[in-house]
Amino acid sequence: MKRRTIKDLLQDYKKQLHHEVSVSGWVRTFRSNRFIALNDGSTMENIQIVVDFEVFGEELIKNIKTASSLEISGELVESQGAGQSVEILAKKIKILGDNFSEEMEKTVLQPKKHSLEILREQAHLRFRTNLFGAVFRVRSAISFAIHQFFHQNHFFYIHTPLITGADAEGAGEMFRVTNFDLENIPRTENGEIDFSEDFFGKKTSLTVSGQLNVETAMMGLGRVYTFGPTFRAENSNTARHLAEFWMVEPEVAFNNLEDNIDLAEDFLKFVIRYVLENCRADLEFLDKRFADEQKQKPEKDRAKQGLIEKLESVTSKRFRRVSYTEAIDILLNSKENKKGKFQFPIESWGADLQSEHERFLVEKHFESPVVLFDYPKEIKAFYMRLNEDGKTVAAMDVLFPGIGEIIGGSQREERLEILQKKMHEMQVDEEELWWYLDTRKFGSVPHSGFGLGLERLVLFVTGMSNIRDVIPFPRTPKSAEF
Amino acid sequence: MKRRTIKDLLQDYKKQLHHEVSVSGWVRTFRSNRFIALNDGSTMENIQIVVDFEVFGEELIKNIKTASSLEISGELVESQGAGQSVEILAKKIKILGDNFSEEMEKTVLQPKKHSLEILREQAHLRFRTNLFGAVFRVRSAISFAIHQFFHQNHFFYIHTPLITGADAEGAGEMFRVTNFDLENIPRTENGEIDFSEDFFGKKTSLTVSGQLNVETAMMGLGRVYTFGPTFRAENSNTARHLAEFWMVEPEVAFNNLEDNIDLAEDFLKFVIRYVLENCRADLEFLDKRFADEQKQKPEKDRAKQGLIEKLESVTSKRFRRVSYTEAIDILLNSKENKKGKFQFPIESWGADLQSEHERFLVEKHFESPVVLFDYPKEIKAFYMRLNEDGKTVAAMDVLFPGIGEIIGGSQREERLEILQKKMHEMQVDEEELWWYLDTRKFGSVPHSGFGLGLERLVLFVTGMSNIRDVIPFPRTPKSAEF
Repeated sequence: MKRRTIKDLLQDYKKQLHHEVSVSGWVRTFRSNRFIALNDGSTMENIQIVVDFEVFGEELIKNIKTASSLEISGELVESQGAGQSVEILAKKIKILGDNFSEEMEKTVLQPKKHSLEILREQAHLRFRTNLFGAVFRVRSAISFAIHQFFHQNHFFYIHTPLITGADAEGAGEMFRVTNFDLENIPRTENGEIDFSEDFFGKKTSLTVSGQLNVETAMMGLGRVYTFGPTFRAENSNTARHLAEFWMVEPEVAFNNLEDNIDLAEDFLKFVIRYVLENCRADLEFLDKRFADEQKQKPEKDRAKQGLIEKLESVTSKRFRRVSYTEAIDILLNSKENKKGKFQFPIESWGADLQSEHERFLVEKHFESPVVLFDYPKEIKAFYMRLNEDGKTVAAMDVLFPGIGEIIGGSQREERLEILQKKMHEMQVDEEELWWYLDTRKFGSVPHSGFGLGLERLVLFVTGMSNIRDVIPFPRTPKSAEF
Repeated sequence: MKRRTIKDLLQDYKKQLHHEVSVSGWVRTFRSNRFIALNDGSTMENIQIVVDFEVFGEELIKNIKTASSLEISGELVESQGAGQSVEILAKKIKILGDNFSEEMEKTVLQPKKHSLEILREQAHLRFRTNLFGAVFRVRSAISFAIHQFFHQNHFFYIHTPLITGADAEGAGEMFRVTNFDLENIPRTENGEIDFSEDFFGKKTSLTVSGQLNVETAMMGLGRVYTFGPTFRAENSNTARHLAEFWMVEPEVAFNNLEDNIDLAEDFLKFVIRYVLENCRADLEFLDKRFADEQKQKPEKDRAKQGLIEKLESVTSKRFRRVSYTEAIDILLNSKENKKGKFQFPIESWGADLQSEHERFLVEKHFESPVVLFDYPKEIKAFYMRLNEDGKTVAAMDVLFPGIGEIIGGSQREERLEILQKKMHEMQVDEEELWWYLDTRKFGSVPHSGFGLGLERLVLFVTGMSNIRDVIPFPRTPKSAEF
């Protein structure tokens, strides 16, 4: 008899009723020496196993403990009790793995409420809780939906390199990668560090973005994306920053800024709809948790919408598209700005928007996801396309309720001379990026792309509030456990 | 009028015949001032654009050069010429990007044959050649098929961390990751390097495998896989080694070794079939290239099968399953071994198999993919499950023609005491891996998994022979360009 997952069994249980079935999993609870709630991770739901004391005897029953692993076979029947449609009348029970009860007491596997901080300290065990089972199933579904979306739209997946010799990408502080014995770093005759002796024969770091690399692939393959880990060596110990995180970066030949905004909107809606359609049990659990969490907050800080309600509203509305200039006007004229409610008051056109401003626009003013575009060139990256006005660039940010910026992108500067001038002004090393400049020399094309930090999206969809709780093993300042 | 990809246009051209269509792309060739072969990367195939000299005039025609980018609209008509079914009679031509003819002469965009070495030096431009367009479209299809396979089989995708504090994984030399200023490394009072001052507060490296991490997720979610970059700081300057490469590692609760072999076989066949069904034009091009390459070789070194023929044969046959012990017998009794034809002669049971032995078994003896299992414990990793015989472990390697080992895996040692004994014998630090040992303490379960190096599979499917030609930007000793 073939072992089945609990998800699979519950999905078409009608066909299996009164047949013998086999499942394996971990004991979540064992009530009254009779009812085992068994979970195998395939779904949020447990299956109830009914154990007859007479049949199995005290010795075996005694060893069925929380967190033990079992292999069960028995008859699938309609359940008498509330809370489940079917249950298994156990005929055979095999204990696969016992647990070490004393150590168990110190773990988050103990069936009681644990704080998110404690769960983080036991990140290797938190997969086994309802909450983190749900979070990581949803993260997996989001990741799959991302690939699915690009695949359906005829994009090619490009693996851009993580180890890079470039120092110039400018998106943030980089980690050094080296094979040197740090006790004995080779020196040149002048006493300088001799990087030619290092593994790659030069200084190397961990990438902060795959964009420049993926642009070269775009020049051959048209529609491409990269999806992989990126790194920031920034000492930001906040609930929004990770030193290692996953980023999705599509890049499309012949797309202008408007096409790019359309792509970003379609993309986000597709992925969120996918989760709504495919992760119902997990979302319902997360929705309830989110609601409970809101109740703990002072009324003014509570979210206006429930989690699922928020996801549904985002997928059904057209995002508001607003120029930076218009947004500044709205902010300048807002009560909040005039009454000094912003921590960083907006004084004039040219100001960089802070999270509080973005959230004001999204949550208060428009009550909708907002796409801001055409930002002042001074506050954006060198590769963004200069607009006709000479003072703004064809940049776009997608702002989401509760999150602020979830996507940042732009039409890229495809005109070689303007790009070189920009690099010069912003002190980006042209020699180091000779290969990037080449893409503008031989059949350069208008093109656009954006970046999405995966964890930001997972936060939004799961309603979690700390980014360390949506990545399996977070890397942050002073912490690289497991 | 919406711009369409060339792939899309060619697929349902019948509906579009005699309609006006719009495409953009790069000039591959321009013959007789009349016929442009335009490619946009969506497919191997070009679309022919017919240009009427009278309509467009000399000035514009002169500027249509190889590698230029164009936006075209015109009528789609049945083609008069050989080699294509349809062509576009241009009504509008816009030159999007010119090219710098002098520099162009030094690039691989020049329409002539370039060596793979030169193409590697211009990895940022090689996407624009037929060969590398095909290779990277196939790589993308393989990557998507991998996600698709696991998704269909209800696996969850887990992003395991790349930066690790563990030194003990034992799969190879690791790169150090640091935020230290190498000119000024902090020291403790004893004069030792003070890693507590580094970004993560300890020594950190780039991971060599996600397996140990993904096993913790398996304990909660049941069926999981990780698919991401891994690193080896080994000074191997060969056609088979990369310092940075992509690895797929599934891990399944309750699976024994046989289940694991079944999974590996199903997985490989699914992915290869997917490419056969979805990348026909690219495979036909690669098949021809492969055949041409074989002709250059001395007869004895030539592949017995064509590329597509090989892929089809692998997906249609059941892989031969052979124990290590049986394989050693075959090798000991082979003419090759007796006549001293092997560079490393097999002397007795216990020998580690070399690539020449694996290929002998696959290509000469069985003429089939082979799965070897139950290897001597001494030559395999600490986490592999000890068999009843006390001298072998439940390991498996899948061997492929022309490649040798393509997958390596095992049933894992789920019994805490035996695992600890093994770690002690093999000098693996138990304290560092406390969290890994925890997975064997609380409801430990039998489980199995394997690792597949993505680039090995891409080599096999594309028929390329150097691993640097199947990853966009290879990282190898003394080289981290682009």
